[in-house]
Amino acid sequence: MKKLFLSLVALIALVASSSAAEEGKENLKFVDATTLNICGHTMRTEKSPYFRFDCEPYNFKEEAIRRYSRYSAGMYVVFHTNSSQVWATWENVKRRCGDNMTPIFQQGVDLYIKDGNEWRFCGVGRVSTDPEKNCRTKPLVQNLHEGDKEFMLYLPYWCELTRLEIGVDKDATIEAIPSPFRHKVVVYGSSITHGASASRPGMAYPARMSRNLGIDFVNFGFSGNCKMQPEFIPFMTKIEADAFVCDAFANPNYAQIDERLEPFIDAMVAAHPGKPIIMVRTFHHESEFYNLQKRKAFIDKCNLAREKMEKLQKKYKDVYYLEEPYATGRDGENTIDNSHPNDLGFDRIIKAYQPKIAKILKKYGIK
Amino acid sequence: MKKLFLSLVALIALVASSSAAEEGKENLKFVDATTLNICGHTMRTEKSPYFRFDCEPYNFKEEAIRRYSRYSAGMYVVFHTNSSQVWATWENVKRRCGDNMTPIFQQGVDLYIKDGNEWRFCGVGRVSTDPEKNCRTKPLVQNLHEGDKEFMLYLPYWCELTRLEIGVDKDATIEAIPSPFRHKVVVYGSSITHGASASRPGMAYPARMSRNLGIDFVNFGFSGNCKMQPEFIPFMTKIEADAFVCDAFANPNYAQIDERLEPFIDAMVAAHPGKPIIMVRTFHHESEFYNLQKRKAFIDKCNLAREKMEKLQKKYKDVYYLEEPYATGRDGENTIDNSHPNDLGFDRIIKAYQPKIAKILKKYGIK
Repeated sequence: MKKLFLSLVALIALVASSSAAEEGKENLKFVDATTLNICGHTMRTEKSPYFRFDCEPYNFKEEAIRRYSRYSAGMYVVFHTNSSQVWATWENVKRRCGDNMTPIFQQGVDLYIKDGNEWRFCGVGRVSTDPEKNCRTKPLVQNLHEGDKEFMLYLPYWCELTRLEIGVDKDATIEAIPSPFRHKVVVYGSSITHGASASRPGMAYPARMSRNLGIDFVNFGFSGNCKMQPEFIPFMTKIEADAFVCDAFANPNYAQIDERLEPFIDAMVAAHPGKPIIMVRTFHHESEFYNLQKRKAFIDKCNLAREKMEKLQKKYKDVYYLEEPYATGRDGENTIDNSHPNDLGFDRIIKAYQPKIAKILKKYGIK
Repeated sequence: MKKLFLSLVALIALVASSSAAEEGKENLKFVDATTLNICGHTMRTEKSPYFRFDCEPYNFKEEAIRRYSRYSAGMYVVFHTNSSQVWATWENVKRRCGDNMTPIFQQGVDLYIKDGNEWRFCGVGRVSTDPEKNCRTKPLVQNLHEGDKEFMLYLPYWCELTRLEIGVDKDATIEAIPSPFRHKVVVYGSSITHGASASRPGMAYPARMSRNLGIDFVNFGFSGNCKMQPEFIPFMTKIEADAFVCDAFANPNYAQIDERLEPFIDAMVAAHPGKPIIMVRTFHHESEFYNLQKRKAFIDKCNLAREKMEKLQKKYKDVYYLEEPYATGRDGENTIDNSHPNDLGFDRIIKAYQPKIAKILKKYGIK
């Protein structure tokens, strides 16, 4: 009898705790994000709505690049709703999180709301670092004011998303809105462009610049693999965009810059005539200067890039080179690991480069 | 025969890869960090050199507080060596990382080097998010210049460290140095003080303020549990320090502030006569203002804290209240999850509060 009583208590406790975890969920309806507007890429593929592009035609040698092509880095869903709350259910291919980024950045989702003329952060969708828990249903924001509101939901940066549903009040409307940005600028780059190590998806520097300037900076960051490999030429020359920012000096070594930079620029200019091609160097090993060996390699490489870019700027009127050696500050507090900016480092990069990039784009009517 | 050949190839590959991972390790010697100078706490306990304090005498009801007492948050080891490299071997009680902080911050170590009059970041010790891999040996910095160098190694913020050894060149000297800071200021606070969500251990705001001002800001952050509970009174009144900063308004609710603030301050003033007790409110729910319910609770609580602190400042000459509602900026980019500052948010908090805290401390000769 006592046993039965305890079992009943346990059962009641279980029901109570599961209903607490699900609290509010029963008053929601979930809509598939593919029925809304998925933005932030230029090369949609039928293989998945959440792939940045289809890598197959490009013959990339590195498995990492093929994997990154399936990541939703930089992508976002825009919609409007009169719901009092926004939830998400999302699932990704199982993957263990890395150590130099937050799990929320790698596998979480990040919600912004339109407030007057600005897009403002309002909530994240949290995750577990247990790779087995790769599907979750979470509230992003609740108890909102009445009336219609516009939202932008940033997708995870370091995993392959397989399913996304947005939850709203059962009786609410939810519909796609057009992309909030008129112009598209592709940002090709290393892990820094890819977003390492922003604290959450909306904090990657191309995403922040998009909101700041009202221009869609599309994320084509390829962590560790942005080396201007010959396979990137058919890829980068095929992309349709209004301008190109290439943050492409972090990953290649001296010999690779020497061999590849000029052919890369030649091909880009030929494929995108009259469009600005802005080469930038966000990378600066200020703190790693304590490692004498790395310091020498870094300085040699930077000097080579500068010399080559000076010539290329003379050769082509639409090619630009921006270099702010101390963009990230001189106090060494700007990175998590000597390579990847934290949000403070990204803020400094934006302060240094954004006005210069905006000024160039404006000359081409991109504003 | 073919099978044997393949086995041999596999064996050679295995040996080669394991020696690559260990490269350089055979030229090192490792010394136990307890033979150096472990700083950043005021209440050493014989239970472990890496516990912030012994919680047993204080009867804390919350298991989290008892667990946090064993975390090495804010602690650091100082030493000098003429080694060309610094490595670490460290082990912690197995623990799954949380999602709103980087694993490096939670379980990694963070090395600073003395450069002129400044302590500057020079390398992190990386970790795995697999809780089973709770012991690692990693290089922190290599290829250093010749001669003697001083180092400060920050310990993990969100786990219980059980063993730490520092690796240097086999023929190098390594010895403790005295604490670089003359004065000690205890910072009592919530998760924000505890360090969530700095990118690495050295970026928690008390650690940054220590380096900026040359004063040891000791971390007594108790994530989610800094509610001025009565059990904290015997604890906080027993601590020996030159001053106290209490960032204690984030975790308690309205009723708890109403009931506990005055007895807490009364006890602190009685126990630490003539020492400054600086109450601060770093917490600001700017973005979470989209949640109307949370907004109301937050505003009510802030108004109550301000009213009470105005009275207490009149009652006691050494009690101060600092409140900078927009310290963290008005753009909503300052947190990872609406509560916890990212490195940009912490940078803004430091810019807003550090000069005011420094000015008060200076009046008491703490500089």
